[in-house]
Amino acid sequence: MDDKELYFWRGPLPETQALPPDAAPEPWGETRVVGKPVTRVDAYDRVSGSAIYPSDVILPDMLHAAVLTCPHAHALVKKVDTAGAEKMPGVRAVLKDGMPGTNVPWFQGRGGFSSRLFDPHCRYEGDEVAVVAADTIYQAWDAVRAIDVEYEVLPHAVTVEDAMKPDAPGLRDGGNVPPAAKPYERGNVAEGFKAADVVLEQTYTTPCELHNPMELHGCVAKWDGPRLTVWESTQGVYAVQSGVANALKLPLANVRAIGPYMGGGFGSKLETGKYSVMAALLARKTGRPVRLFYTREQVCRSMGNRPANTISLKVGAKRDGTLVALESRAVGTGGAYAEDGTGGVDYLIRELYTCPNVRCENSSALTNAGPQRAFRAPGHPQGAWALESLMDALAARLGMDPVELRLKNVPAASQTRNGVPYSTTGLADCLREGATAFGWAEARGRRPAPSHIKRGVGVAAGMWQGGAGGPPSTAIVKLFPDGSANLNMGASDIGCGTKTWGAQIVAEELHVGLDRISVEHADTGTTQFATPSGGSKTVPTESPAIRSAALDVKRQLLSMAAEQLKVPAADLDLRGGEIVSKADPAKKLGVGQVQAFGRRGVLVGVGYRGPNPQGKATNPFGAQFAEVEVDTKTGEIRVLRFLSAHDSGRVLNEKMFRNQVNGGVTMGIGFGLTEERVMDRQLGKLLTANLHDYKMPTALDAPADKTVIAIDPHDTFCNTGAKGLGEPATIPTAPAIANAVFHATGLRVTDAPMSPARVLRAMAALKPAPAGRKGEE
Amino acid sequence: MDDKELYFWRGPLPETQALPPDAAPEPWGETRVVGKPVTRVDAYDRVSGSAIYPSDVILPDMLHAAVLTCPHAHALVKKVDTAGAEKMPGVRAVLKDGMPGTNVPWFQGRGGFSSRLFDPHCRYEGDEVAVVAADTIYQAWDAVRAIDVEYEVLPHAVTVEDAMKPDAPGLRDGGNVPPAAKPYERGNVAEGFKAADVVLEQTYTTPCELHNPMELHGCVAKWDGPRLTVWESTQGVYAVQSGVANALKLPLANVRAIGPYMGGGFGSKLETGKYSVMAALLARKTGRPVRLFYTREQVCRSMGNRPANTISLKVGAKRDGTLVALESRAVGTGGAYAEDGTGGVDYLIRELYTCPNVRCENSSALTNAGPQRAFRAPGHPQGAWALESLMDALAARLGMDPVELRLKNVPAASQTRNGVPYSTTGLADCLREGATAFGWAEARGRRPAPSHIKRGVGVAAGMWQGGAGGPPSTAIVKLFPDGSANLNMGASDIGCGTKTWGAQIVAEELHVGLDRISVEHADTGTTQFATPSGGSKTVPTESPAIRSAALDVKRQLLSMAAEQLKVPAADLDLRGGEIVSKADPAKKLGVGQVQAFGRRGVLVGVGYRGPNPQGKATNPFGAQFAEVEVDTKTGEIRVLRFLSAHDSGRVLNEKMFRNQVNGGVTMGIGFGLTEERVMDRQLGKLLTANLHDYKMPTALDAPADKTVIAIDPHDTFCNTGAKGLGEPATIPTAPAIANAVFHATGLRVTDAPMSPARVLRAMAALKPAPAGRKGEE
Repeated sequence: MDDKELYFWRGPLPETQALPPDAAPEPWGETRVVGKPVTRVDAYDRVSGSAIYPSDVILPDMLHAAVLTCPHAHALVKKVDTAGAEKMPGVRAVLKDGMPGTNVPWFQGRGGFSSRLFDPHCRYEGDEVAVVAADTIYQAWDAVRAIDVEYEVLPHAVTVEDAMKPDAPGLRDGGNVPPAAKPYERGNVAEGFKAADVVLEQTYTTPCELHNPMELHGCVAKWDGPRLTVWESTQGVYAVQSGVANALKLPLANVRAIGPYMGGGFGSKLETGKYSVMAALLARKTGRPVRLFYTREQVCRSMGNRPANTISLKVGAKRDGTLVALESRAVGTGGAYAEDGTGGVDYLIRELYTCPNVRCENSSALTNAGPQRAFRAPGHPQGAWALESLMDALAARLGMDPVELRLKNVPAASQTRNGVPYSTTGLADCLREGATAFGWAEARGRRPAPSHIKRGVGVAAGMWQGGAGGPPSTAIVKLFPDGSANLNMGASDIGCGTKTWGAQIVAEELHVGLDRISVEHADTGTTQFATPSGGSKTVPTESPAIRSAALDVKRQLLSMAAEQLKVPAADLDLRGGEIVSKADPAKKLGVGQVQAFGRRGVLVGVGYRGPNPQGKATNPFGAQFAEVEVDTKTGEIRVLRFLSAHDSGRVLNEKMFRNQVNGGVTMGIGFGLTEERVMDRQLGKLLTANLHDYKMPTALDAPADKTVIAIDPHDTFCNTGAKGLGEPATIPTAPAIANAVFHATGLRVTDAPMSPARVLRAMAALKPAPAGRKGEE
Repeated sequence: MDDKELYFWRGPLPETQALPPDAAPEPWGETRVVGKPVTRVDAYDRVSGSAIYPSDVILPDMLHAAVLTCPHAHALVKKVDTAGAEKMPGVRAVLKDGMPGTNVPWFQGRGGFSSRLFDPHCRYEGDEVAVVAADTIYQAWDAVRAIDVEYEVLPHAVTVEDAMKPDAPGLRDGGNVPPAAKPYERGNVAEGFKAADVVLEQTYTTPCELHNPMELHGCVAKWDGPRLTVWESTQGVYAVQSGVANALKLPLANVRAIGPYMGGGFGSKLETGKYSVMAALLARKTGRPVRLFYTREQVCRSMGNRPANTISLKVGAKRDGTLVALESRAVGTGGAYAEDGTGGVDYLIRELYTCPNVRCENSSALTNAGPQRAFRAPGHPQGAWALESLMDALAARLGMDPVELRLKNVPAASQTRNGVPYSTTGLADCLREGATAFGWAEARGRRPAPSHIKRGVGVAAGMWQGGAGGPPSTAIVKLFPDGSANLNMGASDIGCGTKTWGAQIVAEELHVGLDRISVEHADTGTTQFATPSGGSKTVPTESPAIRSAALDVKRQLLSMAAEQLKVPAADLDLRGGEIVSKADPAKKLGVGQVQAFGRRGVLVGVGYRGPNPQGKATNPFGAQFAEVEVDTKTGEIRVLRFLSAHDSGRVLNEKMFRNQVNGGVTMGIGFGLTEERVMDRQLGKLLTANLHDYKMPTALDAPADKTVIAIDPHDTFCNTGAKGLGEPATIPTAPAIANAVFHATGLRVTDAPMSPARVLRAMAALKPAPAGRKGEE
């Protein structure tokens, strides 16, 4: 199964008698540790610098590698002359197409087609041409510059429009436009629009975003005889293991991927990079460890992006707000190699509200630009930008409160996905409780003093198609005779606090302090299986396995203690390192006194993720409220106040829940206000390949006043009751801000990001509207 | 439970209903991988230098530590002035007695009494007084030399005789002589000797040996907040974990001990060293990692030794050779701190032969010398030196063949231990098959040409009281979807090939090539529980757990495949990555096609060591045959030819079996011919504190002609049928050589090592004996 399947795991787990479903006890009632706002268990390591990230790994005799990439948007490599480079000081190995070992087929980009490791057909500015390993990184770069390449430059197309032209340069045989997928359809949209009292239609555009994780993409590779170890900055060590093993035809057991700390990914590090294979080949050739990290510019060009989308959306509603028809047409490009540039874009349009007649059509084209990769809620922020902007316009047209319009279309009890009921739906509560806490009604009615700085409030809702867990997961908990414990799991902690809530679950079940729990994770050599951390599925996938493992070890301990104390195991409880009889508290044993340790030394509990609930769908939901200030002279937008209300099931750590939401909101602010990959259409080159030209929001752009509310509808789909959070947090942010901008100014900005220039342009085109508080559509 | 209990694990495992005994399948019949002479799986890593031993660990910002030790055999520390040292360049921390954190009670030496970390009462030349951490090791040593210590020098005693004198300087309150243990007694020796036709009596002495492992003792310690990681050259990471955690009052989960490679131990690295605690304290004080390895001289002084023993042995026999009485008196010293200087010395005397009347008495005294530690077969080589020399003398006196005399006293079927039958006894077969293969009868009858260089042959037998497994063990086997596998176990590979035979067992059960198996071990953070590797119990303790883990994962795989193929699981077999129906070979599935992987990603099997067989004792046995050349002019002895016949149950790897035996024999040659710790009685100082003065045998001292025979009596005491080997191999070596020297020269050397000087001295005292082939006692 490839990374895509692991990331978007949908199907039910195979049912079997041979492996009976694991005990899935009821979710907790009152908890002692779980849910509490405890500090991260690795906080000290991270802030003290003692945490070793893959880019910190320095091995004896390690070589440094640098990659030569194609400077053209589209070219054929005719000749690569490395003779000069190979003679340069410190250079130990050079690899290029056609050299032994380099003929590795490579799957680049999701939904894409294969290239070679060094493909002579370069399809974007950034395709890899050669790689050098040298004693120092400076020597490696000097040698890269000394490589002489003869290119035949081809015409290029970096926009969907250019790529779809009949005479567009072909990125592959069969053309740039993949066969269109069947449009999604339910009901009959034509009939729906006929029955509508109001029909609105608008075209929205969203920017191409670059992930820009703090740590660059790369790895260190080292061979010990036939065994390869790769320290990689990745969201999933098992994905790296299988990717590298497949490419180099190695047994899985002989590839050890290690990445306990990693500096962010947001979806761009779900896949194995060509760099891992290059580093491994260079290390094998030289007999020395090799470090290969891409530069910031190379990461911006090659390591994925969120496709830009153009979404034409049409909505039909009854006078009372009831939706009767939704129709969308989305266009996008996944760049080179990645066929699908619209994945996930229509999900909210189909699923967020109950609407009998829906039709969604998507089309993509390949372009001579960096291939897309999964990016925090693939497609969803784009879809939300269109849907939630248009819902706001509909409310204005109908003269309804935007919260009321949404509640009207969310059933009070539960939503369904194509008729399958959700295990729980907290969307209505997110909207209601969020509005109350935000002071929505009061804020909407407020009449500020006249000024060129306008204030307004907006709301948007969202859901995420993943976040329900599902892929397999194994966790092991070791209990030491002094009652302290070790958690062993494969999942990467990509910054969300995976280690911490994992330790909290163990602490809860074994009634032991967090300071007595150690965690080992993200190492295919020593830790258990996990799919990559992403898709907001890490919590709902790993947490039930961790809880099961802790309960397994507790069961062993208590059943042994029961025999020693001559009481039923059900009568025993584990309390602060002691096993105590509930009936007769005088009957007790210290953990270390249990003879199990004489038989085992250390007790080992194994836990797996249990099966999904039959006949139920699961999703996390959320609603966000923004208050903004718009400077109508400069076009600048400031987010003053933000409230996020999320149904992600049970919260495992209140503090990390808030942090996670606020991080997602900040990313949503980037999507809505500042971030945009800019390509030069004529040259086909990336103009925003660094953090100066590509504007990421900073702490100064985040709202000072932030509130996070958790709606826990007591989901029981897994034994911890937790649903995903990472992606939901970023989905409704940008339209909530855009709707607040409309409320403030009467200006409806349909193109994200809402940069000052774009706001001023739109403002100039705007007809003056009375008081700026009534609809203008 | 302390290290001693773990090492000499005797008691039965606690019985319980709660943890049912693991399935203990029958030992293998024919095997495909197990037993075969495959090359070590880590051979490349070891010879290429890519293996990282603890002394290779270099961490960023690491400090280097050096220890100041007491230069006197016995002294009170009155004052330690570190002011000058602390001001020296690069010095980051100095610790001495009385400073915060240093008041750590310490258990030093087996069977000993506690000292403090820096004890002001220094009881031997080598007791630790202070420690310095500096930027470089040179700066650390300069600072150690700058520490000003005021000692009150006390009288000392480094020999048992001196220590037992009424006015001997006391090492502790209560005197130097611990209360005598009750002598071992069975039958009535006085009656036995009365009934004997022949009685012989002789006093034997054996040298104090130093372990001298290739890698020195030490560790690197690093803190991450409250968690401590120790990379230590150790035989048991879990022993280090518990030792350090106890000393520093840390939860076990917060101490991670790592030591996958280590350069030899032979018993001296079963315990946690003071160095680990010092390194941890220095690292905590400075906030930097600290490397602390003792020097060769410090290791020779402080890191243990095999006590020198004086053994008076008396044997009574019938004319036909039947033993009727054995009586021994052994004296020894464990040095400072270690009370017992005779542990294990009488075991062979009590157990090797069936003799109705036996009495053994041991006594020890504390001396001002380095404390003893377990040393490859504690006590047994000493006991064998006495018993097997005297048996040879008895054979000569009776005019019997020495092999025949031994066979006479070993029952043909099985021995018993105090009436409890052994699961199997291969001793008679070792003697018989060894004699045949050696050409014993022919070699004994050979009459070489007259020369000052004499040739002769000798035999000796042995057994080892451990080697039966027993302590708890857990192993985990992970099966990847491509059929490759990972073995996870806690045991250290102390040079015996633990990783390799572990991988062979997995390869056997999962029918997969050794090149598709990786092994992780010896890390309390990531691998399973194991007791220290030692006592020849590693194979019989770990191998059944590994086999059980492999069978557990296979069971899961086959039961799932059975469901898919709709056949009973018992009908299925795993063959080269495929699951095949025995009844219908057309029915098959690739490992990766089994849906179990969809549910689990990676299959995990857990195995434990099963219980010992009820009502049975287990021991490994052996017999060795030597052919030597004695230069009667120089006193030099050369071992020309050596045959070892060992019953260690099933052989897991034929090549490593041979290597292990030959290594043990070489160590036995050192014991018999060259090694001896020499103390200056007047100064109380060690004179042989380096490899120039302390003579270890080299490859040139090992016999060129070496044969190893395995006697496998098909033991079923555990599911792999394997008994221990490491220690048995070294037990009979020295007396086999001594007996060959007697056969060659008629000279009976009773003091080991048989150095040229000692041989010449004995030769000078020898009355000429006719042809040197008849007994002289």
